[in-house]
Amino acid sequence: MHTTFKLKRLMTAFALMVTALMMISTSAAQEQPKPQQKRIVSERELPTPLAISDALSTIISSADVKEVAIRQAQVPQSEAEWNQTIEAADAQLIALTKQFIPVLQVDVEAHQIAGVTVRTITPPKLDPKFSNKVLLHLHPGGYVLNKGLASIGEAMLIATRIGAKVISVDYRMPPASPYPAAVTDVLSVYSALLKQHQSEAIALVGSSAGGGLALAATLKFKEEGLPLPGAIFAGSPWADLTKTGDSLYTLKGVDRLLYTYDGLLEASAKLYAGKHDIKTPFISPLYGDFSGFPPVQLVTGSRDLFLSDTARTHRKMKQANVLAELNVYEGLSHVEYLQAMNTPESMQIHKELGEFLLQHLQSSD
Amino acid sequence: MHTTFKLKRLMTAFALMVTALMMISTSAAQEQPKPQQKRIVSERELPTPLAISDALSTIISSADVKEVAIRQAQVPQSEAEWNQTIEAADAQLIALTKQFIPVLQVDVEAHQIAGVTVRTITPPKLDPKFSNKVLLHLHPGGYVLNKGLASIGEAMLIATRIGAKVISVDYRMPPASPYPAAVTDVLSVYSALLKQHQSEAIALVGSSAGGGLALAATLKFKEEGLPLPGAIFAGSPWADLTKTGDSLYTLKGVDRLLYTYDGLLEASAKLYAGKHDIKTPFISPLYGDFSGFPPVQLVTGSRDLFLSDTARTHRKMKQANVLAELNVYEGLSHVEYLQAMNTPESMQIHKELGEFLLQHLQSSD
Repeated sequence: MHTTFKLKRLMTAFALMVTALMMISTSAAQEQPKPQQKRIVSERELPTPLAISDALSTIISSADVKEVAIRQAQVPQSEAEWNQTIEAADAQLIALTKQFIPVLQVDVEAHQIAGVTVRTITPPKLDPKFSNKVLLHLHPGGYVLNKGLASIGEAMLIATRIGAKVISVDYRMPPASPYPAAVTDVLSVYSALLKQHQSEAIALVGSSAGGGLALAATLKFKEEGLPLPGAIFAGSPWADLTKTGDSLYTLKGVDRLLYTYDGLLEASAKLYAGKHDIKTPFISPLYGDFSGFPPVQLVTGSRDLFLSDTARTHRKMKQANVLAELNVYEGLSHVEYLQAMNTPESMQIHKELGEFLLQHLQSSD
Repeated sequence: MHTTFKLKRLMTAFALMVTALMMISTSAAQEQPKPQQKRIVSERELPTPLAISDALSTIISSADVKEVAIRQAQVPQSEAEWNQTIEAADAQLIALTKQFIPVLQVDVEAHQIAGVTVRTITPPKLDPKFSNKVLLHLHPGGYVLNKGLASIGEAMLIATRIGAKVISVDYRMPPASPYPAAVTDVLSVYSALLKQHQSEAIALVGSSAGGGLALAATLKFKEEGLPLPGAIFAGSPWADLTKTGDSLYTLKGVDRLLYTYDGLLEASAKLYAGKHDIKTPFISPLYGDFSGFPPVQLVTGSRDLFLSDTARTHRKMKQANVLAELNVYEGLSHVEYLQAMNTPESMQIHKELGEFLLQHLQSSD
């Protein structure tokens, strides 16, 4: 006991002093534990990140964050208000998507797989290396937005950039269809694909809610005893809907696209979970068991409110012996690579996504 | 030209709308570029991170950040003041290190390699898997602190935790010996080790300035035409001394151990660089060419002021086809794993360091 006590006392004293490893101090070490401190981080001006591309710098420096803050604070108070808000947002994105399709020269074919609406995006140039591989895309939108044609923005980008067909799932969402509808739909589509393809030839790809859903659905596949996909891309996955990640607090007001978790995001999480425990791994996959998962590519940014969701997912996967790679892009807010598309950062992310998929997916023969 | 213009216009419009992927908005999209916005991040209370170990939570919640802020603002104004400050800090750490050595039961042998003082740390239990491998440690301390016996804190931890001998280099530092003395000393020691060991059996390990120096020295080995080491561990490396990383601004006042780059850190960088360009890759390795580097393990935290230094190093290495892995620990401030030693987070970092070294180092036969 005496040795243990001495060890602990010395460890504490030493720990305090190792602070001096990076700090110069002539004051005496404090060996007494202190009461909980209230941490206040002062107001400060935030410069545009210095080590980013010119294209991204121009976008960030001219962005109006106040508008975003106002939007995020507007929480619909009834199902009717939710529907109104969602429909208005989706209508705008659908109108632009319709203009964008001919410009990108992608072919968009809506069809059903196992009763679920999906859209197969075919880009003008196909890389034959992807011909026997299946990319299943799950769209972002906080589990409430981007129904119908509004769901394919990221899928079109990926398809065009890597030269592969992408199947984007128009999964059901609240208010009409909260959890588990989204997971059930992905399970249905995946199960149907397994009849024609080896699981190792199928990748799940998605960002934000789509990234979280990719992880949650894979946990569901595992529970169902299905063979798991060959690779997963989760861009800044919404892996924890419980408002727990450190970056939700450290980067509040710094992320220019989400700005804050308070308000809309928190309300969307609750709307999606409905009567279910928000901590169930099929809603918040961070609380699941990732062992046996295929290789996972994770992407986030130094200003991403979901930096912690992404990094915690990576840590938990590594501890479960999953081949997970974490990529943190300088200056990027939440899924900014989907908004600031014409930037080297966005192109690099999709370039590495293509390489990652080719490295890990098997051909379906 | 018309098509290009149309594409650009649509891309811009689409980009603006894709914001709606995560945000609900009924307002019209703004298609006009706006002037540069002044970004102000408001004052806020910062809670203790929620998803960390109890041990780390206790430490963070009782830490006094105001004291750190005051310390970091005290910049020595002359060589005499620098020496005074350094000696006082080092004396405290040396006194504690002396108490700590018998508790950890490590053997510390100071000797010279190629005229440079090093210390070989031998832990009480040696893992035979490390017996033919050489771990060369470069200590933290902002290139000014931790001379002599104050240099071995991290080396003792690593040696004890992974069960390996560690050689820690007591490299020369300013004010007496600014750059390139530190790099020269590491080069001398490494060159001497190469006479007895295969390069693939040697690892460079270090945190903060030690992590940056590991990268800078490897760039120097490359320039000298030497075979490169078999693996590198760079914990939150000070890879860019030019005050450029985004996290220096986003996490200012959030990192409880460094608090801010202004003041001491910036002054230390200048003192170390002396008359040399602070952007030379042998001072700021982030500006070097990492191609040909061995596998690199990188560690940082969600509150680390050097998050961007670490993440940018990782990105640049990946683009140079280096097998680099980035690990972001929830809630950790800069090299907090060296200060909050008795935490699962600190132990996990060194556990994974040991696994990484065994995976990539060859035996020296």
